[in-house]
Amino acid sequence: MLGIDPDPGKLWEDAIGDLAESRARLVMALADVERSAALDLGRGGRTARLEAAAAVLAHCLGLIDAAGPACVAIKPQLACFERLGFPGWLALEGTIAHARAHELLVIADAKRGDFPGSARAYEQAVFGGIATAYGPSPGLGADAVTQNPLLGRDALAPFLDGAREAGAGVFVLVRTSNPGAADFLDAELAAGGPLWERIAGMVDAAGTPGPESGLAEVGAVCGATAPEHLARMRELMPHAPFLLPGVGAQGGSVADLAPAFAAGRAGGLVSASRSIAGAHEALGGAPGDAARAEAERLREAAWALG
Amino acid sequence: MLGIDPDPGKLWEDAIGDLAESRARLVMALADVERSAALDLGRGGRTARLEAAAAVLAHCLGLIDAAGPACVAIKPQLACFERLGFPGWLALEGTIAHARAHELLVIADAKRGDFPGSARAYEQAVFGGIATAYGPSPGLGADAVTQNPLLGRDALAPFLDGAREAGAGVFVLVRTSNPGAADFLDAELAAGGPLWERIAGMVDAAGTPGPESGLAEVGAVCGATAPEHLARMRELMPHAPFLLPGVGAQGGSVADLAPAFAAGRAGGLVSASRSIAGAHEALGGAPGDAARAEAERLREAAWALG
Repeated sequence: MLGIDPDPGKLWEDAIGDLAESRARLVMALADVERSAALDLGRGGRTARLEAAAAVLAHCLGLIDAAGPACVAIKPQLACFERLGFPGWLALEGTIAHARAHELLVIADAKRGDFPGSARAYEQAVFGGIATAYGPSPGLGADAVTQNPLLGRDALAPFLDGAREAGAGVFVLVRTSNPGAADFLDAELAAGGPLWERIAGMVDAAGTPGPESGLAEVGAVCGATAPEHLARMRELMPHAPFLLPGVGAQGGSVADLAPAFAAGRAGGLVSASRSIAGAHEALGGAPGDAARAEAERLREAAWALG
Repeated sequence: MLGIDPDPGKLWEDAIGDLAESRARLVMALADVERSAALDLGRGGRTARLEAAAAVLAHCLGLIDAAGPACVAIKPQLACFERLGFPGWLALEGTIAHARAHELLVIADAKRGDFPGSARAYEQAVFGGIATAYGPSPGLGADAVTQNPLLGRDALAPFLDGAREAGAGVFVLVRTSNPGAADFLDAELAAGGPLWERIAGMVDAAGTPGPESGLAEVGAVCGATAPEHLARMRELMPHAPFLLPGVGAQGGSVADLAPAFAAGRAGGLVSASRSIAGAHEALGGAPGDAARAEAERLREAAWALG
């Protein structure tokens, strides 16, 4: 899976250059929107973010063209688009539309979690949108979203409802691989076991395994850099698909992830971002060629486990 | 504090009518952006979300004009804007710009929480933005953001860094008032006390009380509908400002919140959304007049506690 975390300081120059004319047109249109909305940000760099967002979009289109054929899905990190404001959110939508045209699945890496009413609005944003007085307003149309479970079952429920309506899925954060996971996720409960195992129990109880795949619509995000937990996770969540970010640049290795695949090949979804988009820094050559080669290498390694 | 959770099904008709011309101009400009980005959503309702977003913006401007003078801050719920895609995010930016023009503080109700790298991108989105090859790209310029602490201290750190740079604050979810809080936040730890008390400990340790106010830059979100926890929260977090959503429509009462104000008047920030924007449904009259009256009533009630 192709993680898309665009950094405005590390974009592919050739992908940007290829789209110079359409970028210029987009920047002008965005500037007109700002004028029409009487939106004066008044903090300098008036068109900087418009140009940056247009460049990010061009970069993401190039990345999908290059590495998409070796992937089943893209996983855009919403934070990286949001930091460019509404033009960044437009770049996100353009990136998703391009992935669809390439018949790729889309996993919105949003890590949303909120009170039930707001969770409903968030699922509308990532899945099917909302009915308005002006007609239906579509959402991102994602095939899955990542979710933060802290607020409990009633805050997860709207995401599950939205996912079922859309034929999509939800990946719940279960045990992350950052050092801070020790603060709360690993906290030992009085009833026994760490907090993350209780979250895993909620994930298992919330999902219904599909008749053919045997996989549920509720999955788990499991850090690929903490493979020592994977066997226990598979035990607690036998039917959950696992989303495994952190392969490559963050130090995770595909070969360590075998336990995640115990439910079959589709039981584990390996995701890599920087190691694909930045493959040319290690391998040399054109960014697109290096990205394609690295994506193909990861695919082979993951399939060998399935 | 004025919570802004616009529901496209419950907008103020008169506020929308007042801005008919500028809405039409904005919708045309947004449609031009979609064309320039070759963004064909292909799911019907081609202009519905553009019109809905322009109407939401008009509604929010009217709401701020009416109730803003009785408030110190607005608290836009990002989910309600995101569900209208990039035009919705533009409406969010326009709403924030209007609040600034009214000298109101802005608390971005985002509930973000992610791995440290992505948390950095999220804080750039809500606070000061990011440097790009094209110049500085501003963020939302919020005065504070709500944060989800599940991923621990290293995932909170980027928000704190961003807040300090921007002279802003962070409100960490500590003990929410939804039934699902029982699932994990109330889980009893082997070391004693519920999980939320450990989170409260992190909030207390992370903040530094200001020399004049005595209040730290790291606050806590505490459900106004669960006032039984407030005294204990104040004990665990003596210097944290408390953000108290859920007054009014969600059933919380200002009078129950006295323990939150123990650190002084600014120690508690009461927030109401639907009870202000929908005050005309109970009080009758024009939406703007009813909203102003309700916002003034809540302000008086909160100040009486301080």
